[in-house]
Amino acid sequence: MDKLKRLENLVGYEFKNKELLKEALTHKSMKTGCNNERLEFLGDAVLDLIVGEYLFSKFEHTDEGNLSKLRAALVNEKSFAKLSNSINLGEFLYLSTAEENNNGRNKPSLLSDALEALMGAIYLESGLEKVKDIFTKLLEKEYQNIDLKSLGKDYKTTLQEITQARFGVTPKYELVSSSGPDHKKVFEMAVYLEGKELARSFGPSKKEAEQSAALKVLQGMEQ
Amino acid sequence: MDKLKRLENLVGYEFKNKELLKEALTHKSMKTGCNNERLEFLGDAVLDLIVGEYLFSKFEHTDEGNLSKLRAALVNEKSFAKLSNSINLGEFLYLSTAEENNNGRNKPSLLSDALEALMGAIYLESGLEKVKDIFTKLLEKEYQNIDLKSLGKDYKTTLQEITQARFGVTPKYELVSSSGPDHKKVFEMAVYLEGKELARSFGPSKKEAEQSAALKVLQGMEQ
Repeated sequence: MDKLKRLENLVGYEFKNKELLKEALTHKSMKTGCNNERLEFLGDAVLDLIVGEYLFSKFEHTDEGNLSKLRAALVNEKSFAKLSNSINLGEFLYLSTAEENNNGRNKPSLLSDALEALMGAIYLESGLEKVKDIFTKLLEKEYQNIDLKSLGKDYKTTLQEITQARFGVTPKYELVSSSGPDHKKVFEMAVYLEGKELARSFGPSKKEAEQSAALKVLQGMEQ
Repeated sequence: MDKLKRLENLVGYEFKNKELLKEALTHKSMKTGCNNERLEFLGDAVLDLIVGEYLFSKFEHTDEGNLSKLRAALVNEKSFAKLSNSINLGEFLYLSTAEENNNGRNKPSLLSDALEALMGAIYLESGLEKVKDIFTKLLEKEYQNIDLKSLGKDYKTTLQEITQARFGVTPKYELVSSSGPDHKKVFEMAVYLEGKELARSFGPSKKEAEQSAALKVLQGMEQ
């Protein structure tokens, strides 16, 4: 079977315009003039809305703070790379030889970007409902449990996996301050990457302040 | 004329469910159990997509970096407060007496949040195309010139206006480093608020590095 056809089967969507599909799969290392960065810009916003609405409807009584936390756990490079792998997206990317030799086909950032571009392309051709349909199925297949208990608990691990993969370094956490009476102490922790502060946040324990600071960094990365 | 009806006329949309409209107008200072924060969460993503797609289509040959810059100039508290004022949104908000006395009806943050919530509510009732239609008209009426030259130039001013309104303080910029030969120097500037670093960025001049650092902070605020 033709290669693009195989991807279309995996995604469950047949492109009317195959050039658009090719654009979504083209990494910027290919100096072809047309790569997937613009489609990624569009797809990023499409997926933010789809996941946001999904959570909004599923959790009718959850406030926006927790909805944001849930979304940050689903909408990030690591999560999107995982979804990409479920349709073998890496195999179909157009990369330069250099990027290929650099293990580009398995890089979470490339996979995540390509997934966004692919969904952006489907959005352009067939609109929001179509992407909602396809992406929600993908999401529910990979995440059996979408709830705060399963997703919300470990931003530190997620952040560490990302910084390890991207920069080969591990974030460090340091106590900035603690205040309040003994039974109601508030801790402020800062998270650093190679000595540079990324964020700081408060919590009722050092651990929770660290999780909260890690979440802030992850939310910044969504951008 | 009935008050809600008057707002509907200004927006150009008649709500099927008036309770949903009321929810979109209810600030969290009203301890009614139901305020506009969840709708704001949804509307925020809706408007990000609408503005993103608008720019994607309008600027076919602009790369994603400049599309992001344009979006950051349109999607921010100051810009949304301006759009809110064009439909007198402040007048229709439900606020606590305390918030009312605190000039809540004119606060950019409240106006911006309420606009997002209102668009989120229309999205829920009538879908993306309807909001696109309404919001694009609003945008084009207030911004005669949507292009990089008109919008992209002054992130420092935008940031200063926001921090002044929110915290009553002005950001400070400091040189972190400069490197490279004299004819090709690169400057790194950091932006601080009350001594805390918010972001740092590079540029071919101190001014451009400052603009770039201010933009980073604005993009972080979009979240």
